[in-house]
Amino acid sequence: MVKNLKSLEEKILKEGEILPGNILKVGSFLNHQIDADFMMEMGREIARLFAHEKVDRILTIETSGIPLAFAAAASLHVPMVFAKKNRTGNLSGNLYTATVHSYTHGVDYTVVVEKKYVPAGERVLIIDDFLANGKALTGLSEIVTMAGSQVAGAAVAIEKGFQQGGDHLRRHGMRVESLAIIESMDGNTLTFRHE
Amino acid sequence: MVKNLKSLEEKILKEGEILPGNILKVGSFLNHQIDADFMMEMGREIARLFAHEKVDRILTIETSGIPLAFAAAASLHVPMVFAKKNRTGNLSGNLYTATVHSYTHGVDYTVVVEKKYVPAGERVLIIDDFLANGKALTGLSEIVTMAGSQVAGAAVAIEKGFQQGGDHLRRHGMRVESLAIIESMDGNTLTFRHE
Repeated sequence: MVKNLKSLEEKILKEGEILPGNILKVGSFLNHQIDADFMMEMGREIARLFAHEKVDRILTIETSGIPLAFAAAASLHVPMVFAKKNRTGNLSGNLYTATVHSYTHGVDYTVVVEKKYVPAGERVLIIDDFLANGKALTGLSEIVTMAGSQVAGAAVAIEKGFQQGGDHLRRHGMRVESLAIIESMDGNTLTFRHE
Repeated sequence: MVKNLKSLEEKILKEGEILPGNILKVGSFLNHQIDADFMMEMGREIARLFAHEKVDRILTIETSGIPLAFAAAASLHVPMVFAKKNRTGNLSGNLYTATVHSYTHGVDYTVVVEKKYVPAGERVLIIDDFLANGKALTGLSEIVTMAGSQVAGAAVAIEKGFQQGGDHLRRHGMRVESLAIIESMDGNTLTFRHE
């Protein structure tokens, strides 16, 4: 079920920084500086994994999910929509909203999407950069369900396998593809899960 | 100097919504829902316009500048960096900061970039979705200058030509390429500038 992208594991080992509190910083290529060619490669890999899932649309969440979601959307030739955090200004019309708990920042926040950009009757692929506790993916999947559409699955770049999110979502029947799964982060030693 | 992208003008006329206060909503393809194929086309056009400018890096600002900046970075095969708004959490090391005044929201905000992602001695292309008063592009160009790099120019999808930003920046010597320039928005009538 899980296919790891070797080039991503190598990039994490080479460029990632481990900070206290199991924080992995990958700002050099994933969520501050973007390695455009590599991001396109990850997008193509997600497109390959979901090629037979009849994906109509990709849904992500601002900010750091946007490049990967866009790269996958460009490969699948489908529209991409990003949910916005904590904002309603300049958003008109009816909104879908979901509440997401952030463990990193210890707060709940609201994500919103204009209803017209999540039409009913579609198959929606949810994408984010990181998967830890899975609350962001859960919030986005609630929006898809509210819209009368179906979750085709979820794809992330890096899953923290030692947290509960990915396994929990899989147990509940969601197809979750992570391009790299970190099994453990012990000091400066990082181990990947391979299945 | 200005080359308009006909397909963008058509898309603005077909899908754009004009709201009171000269607000143009293009959430159907540019900054909420993203038309991935069309965004890649705009990125290729920017790459073509700046093909001879020896661009080393693209700098943009979260959130809505990211898809276009990424599309251009994918075409130019250079890294892209996005400045973050009002946040320093989870950003380590030394930061470049600039203050940007938002007319839309009537406030000043701070944008930050980790210094290591804007190295010295490069030629940097600045990209955003909209250009109105030009304050965002100015703030980003200040960061490029602080870093000891050179602004290769700026590219945006939509310029509001009836505001001062683009013309002001051009008068001060910046190469500014806008894929569409709106000369006037009068009620529901929208006129483009062609040069």
